[in-house]
Amino acid sequence: MVHFKDLDTCEAYKALKKGGTFNLKASLSPERVSDSWIQHAAGMKYCYAFAPVDAPALTKLQALADEQQLIEKYRMLLDGAIMNTGEERMVLHHLARGRLGAPVLWNGKDMETFYREEKSRYYEFARKIRAGNIRAFGGKPFANVVQIGIGGSDLGPRAASIALSRWAASKSRAALKPWFISNVDPDDADWVLSQLDLSETLFVLVSKSGTTQETLANETLVRERLRRAGMNPDTHMVAVTSKSSPLAGNPHYLDSFYIDDFIGGRYSTSSAVGGVILSIAYGPETFEEFLQGAHEADTLALEPSIFRNPVLMDAMIGIYQRNVLGWPCTAVLPYAEPLARFPAHLQQLDMESNGKSVNRAGSPLSYSTGPVVFGEPGTNGQHSFYQLLHQGTDPVPLQFIGFLKNQISPDMSSEGSNSRQKLLSNLVAQIVAFSLGKNDENPNKAFAGNRPSTLIVGEELGARQLGALFSHFENKVMFQGFAWNINSFDQEGVQLGKVLAKRALGAIAEGKDTGDPRLNALISAVLSVAHQGDAPHA
Amino acid sequence: MVHFKDLDTCEAYKALKKGGTFNLKASLSPERVSDSWIQHAAGMKYCYAFAPVDAPALTKLQALADEQQLIEKYRMLLDGAIMNTGEERMVLHHLARGRLGAPVLWNGKDMETFYREEKSRYYEFARKIRAGNIRAFGGKPFANVVQIGIGGSDLGPRAASIALSRWAASKSRAALKPWFISNVDPDDADWVLSQLDLSETLFVLVSKSGTTQETLANETLVRERLRRAGMNPDTHMVAVTSKSSPLAGNPHYLDSFYIDDFIGGRYSTSSAVGGVILSIAYGPETFEEFLQGAHEADTLALEPSIFRNPVLMDAMIGIYQRNVLGWPCTAVLPYAEPLARFPAHLQQLDMESNGKSVNRAGSPLSYSTGPVVFGEPGTNGQHSFYQLLHQGTDPVPLQFIGFLKNQISPDMSSEGSNSRQKLLSNLVAQIVAFSLGKNDENPNKAFAGNRPSTLIVGEELGARQLGALFSHFENKVMFQGFAWNINSFDQEGVQLGKVLAKRALGAIAEGKDTGDPRLNALISAVLSVAHQGDAPHA
Repeated sequence: MVHFKDLDTCEAYKALKKGGTFNLKASLSPERVSDSWIQHAAGMKYCYAFAPVDAPALTKLQALADEQQLIEKYRMLLDGAIMNTGEERMVLHHLARGRLGAPVLWNGKDMETFYREEKSRYYEFARKIRAGNIRAFGGKPFANVVQIGIGGSDLGPRAASIALSRWAASKSRAALKPWFISNVDPDDADWVLSQLDLSETLFVLVSKSGTTQETLANETLVRERLRRAGMNPDTHMVAVTSKSSPLAGNPHYLDSFYIDDFIGGRYSTSSAVGGVILSIAYGPETFEEFLQGAHEADTLALEPSIFRNPVLMDAMIGIYQRNVLGWPCTAVLPYAEPLARFPAHLQQLDMESNGKSVNRAGSPLSYSTGPVVFGEPGTNGQHSFYQLLHQGTDPVPLQFIGFLKNQISPDMSSEGSNSRQKLLSNLVAQIVAFSLGKNDENPNKAFAGNRPSTLIVGEELGARQLGALFSHFENKVMFQGFAWNINSFDQEGVQLGKVLAKRALGAIAEGKDTGDPRLNALISAVLSVAHQGDAPHA
Repeated sequence: MVHFKDLDTCEAYKALKKGGTFNLKASLSPERVSDSWIQHAAGMKYCYAFAPVDAPALTKLQALADEQQLIEKYRMLLDGAIMNTGEERMVLHHLARGRLGAPVLWNGKDMETFYREEKSRYYEFARKIRAGNIRAFGGKPFANVVQIGIGGSDLGPRAASIALSRWAASKSRAALKPWFISNVDPDDADWVLSQLDLSETLFVLVSKSGTTQETLANETLVRERLRRAGMNPDTHMVAVTSKSSPLAGNPHYLDSFYIDDFIGGRYSTSSAVGGVILSIAYGPETFEEFLQGAHEADTLALEPSIFRNPVLMDAMIGIYQRNVLGWPCTAVLPYAEPLARFPAHLQQLDMESNGKSVNRAGSPLSYSTGPVVFGEPGTNGQHSFYQLLHQGTDPVPLQFIGFLKNQISPDMSSEGSNSRQKLLSNLVAQIVAFSLGKNDENPNKAFAGNRPSTLIVGEELGARQLGALFSHFENKVMFQGFAWNINSFDQEGVQLGKVLAKRALGAIAEGKDTGDPRLNALISAVLSVAHQGDAPHA
């Protein structure tokens, strides 16, 4: 029988809190470095040699994973249990990549079939667009595909589309160029549209509810531009939405592809939210490989031993860092420029899922939950914020990612090595530098070391590896949410701002009273900045 | 006489630590909201109504600013004192925008004149490129300008170039399109080059030392591509470097523009590092306005009263949040898509400057220094990590930025308001939501409030405002560094990684021993991932 209890009531957690400190620097033998690896999905490997945990701590982390029944709860979720308790919803993003539990039925419909049928529909649509069988208003084949969406309808699909751009090109699969419009700031849409020829541009409007303010405002802007350019906007736009939304089956779109309430925005890259644009841009076979990689990692995540389950190990190390060592942040550092926006996706995935202060039953928690997540690709980060990571006053645990091969085939040699070798040498050097530090007579040049990290490494970054990486972090966040006994699948924290924004909009656009004198005062003060600019170009 | 002492020896700091707690939510009257504003440079204003400080705390923060002699130290810096103690260098980025102190001489040369003369040279060069008087190898006018640089040679200039793209277009000043290559990962350069016609592309190679590994590797790659396309690379490339570097006066560049050791990378957007590409892309008059805005803000920062000096106020609030309240992070949230990469620049600026554990004399510190800085534009962030900011277990202080007008002129109306009004309403609503929170019977829908923020607001985001924003954060970091008694102008934390990367490269490229068995073991394990992929497309 599965139980739900807070982290601080767990015996294994109490034992962890009583454990001694671990000196990574002193313990880092070559054997530890060689032996602390776990096979991951899609041919990748996970390394925990540089994590701040010794054998006794790992034993207790395994005991905690067992005591909190993390694998059992994952199985419940896969079987269609209502794991999103606040919203009383199932959590089905895994099912979009393949079934690992019991058949999941909803309103008499098998959900696996639903996801597969939608996928078939948009694969077919993508093939027609790519072949030029569906064409733009003036008869040209489509050359660009622009996603209009925000949050989960933007960050994951955008990260994936950047990640696979050169890889798909190297496989001659890159047919349409993907773009994204997200912000309600019209300077966002304006910039994107300034880069494009509208007469060969398809738009994918993504909003589950069909009521997202930013997305509808951007749709209005785009439709107006299409009309002004003499085109019928209806022939340049498809919708990704739920069946109950105003966009469903609406004749003002070329077609509508469906999602549902059981896949949250930040988990939705595996659904039509990511699938439509990725299969149009890079081909259904590319998106299919992405799903296969994710499914492979989902399957591996069922393994109960942390020594054979890299995601479970990673999740438990994160709990140790957050709740035993008390560290508030995590940096994600992919040594791969194609993963430039993957940290921004992880920021949403992790912080929106686990930035919670009450447990799944609504009781306040007395321990820390999700960390602040940030990151940029290496080596760029080395020339930016690594200074603080090496010599700042607070340790920040690091999550490295790297690959042995370029996405493009040829590389250039300079000074006896190619760029990939330089990139890899920086990756391994940083891991060692952070952990071992360096003594120096000049304290300004000394490094304390003992700054821990983990590493995921693969041979190449392709669609399959990318899918496995998406799954890795989704399941890490899920396991940690189970350990903290929180609901990782709702986001009530975004609601209050929406309510107040509506009232503020009434004041700004129509001069209404907001009902709150502080909000009124702020709006007055902000608007009074007008005409203070005295800029020569005003 | 100026003294240098640690923060925890200051009487005002001890008084601050003894001060009572402040309940922002309970104290937030309409009067507080209306009255807590300071005029900023370039027509902007700064609001501290939502900061977690009351009148007694502000009095003590003023006393601390006075006791640590922040303005006196700023004046010393402006007068050319050796404020970068570790490297024994002056700190002259302010001088690149105008003189505020005594004339600064070095090796008999007036440094203000040096910066102005270099600026005149690259303005002249930019005019010729823009007018088509200097042309590409095959005779075409240049249409693209690509900066090759990393760290400070990338992040600040890139953030500025994105920020001014649409604004410059609206003023018909956008002549060449700016691009950036930074990462040693060749997939970075490959992606950029795949977007361009090389026969109309100029490259700006930026490296102060002329030896930056990433930048030289990317230069090799770019030159090879130019040669393969039948062009002479020397006619497509200029250098920005120091006079002692191998790139100086080198015939393999169209021209070389000079910088020096007194302007650190992260402070260098105001020098030729930012000036060459920005004046080529958007015109010398645009870069000149950027410098004017920065100089205006630099001038304002001389004011000793925190109630008239928005940067000093911001810096002191940051010290309060970091050292009295103990908060480890700061989020920067520009409600302006053109500032999309401004947080990445601030991440380097702040974390590389103030991520230090020893004071300027090299003694270890027993208090926290620079925070982790992260951020994304609003409203995007609202649909991403704001959940944690609202309802996570740890408070994160917030730094909002907003503007009343679009960079582009027309806006579209939808549902009774335009996009700018929607953006602004979200900005003010979030500030109020974070501070006041909301009671709810359902604890999952309750917001504790008391999550503080500050705000910089302007009428529009143009070159002048952008310059003032760059200055604001540079001077904030400087004042905080003075308060912490650290050297904000060196970056020894990046050295150890470089040394180890060289040894790792010997192992990876030539099979040499690194001299460290742990590093050897890591390299072996990483390389063993090869051929494990069994991907169908391998």
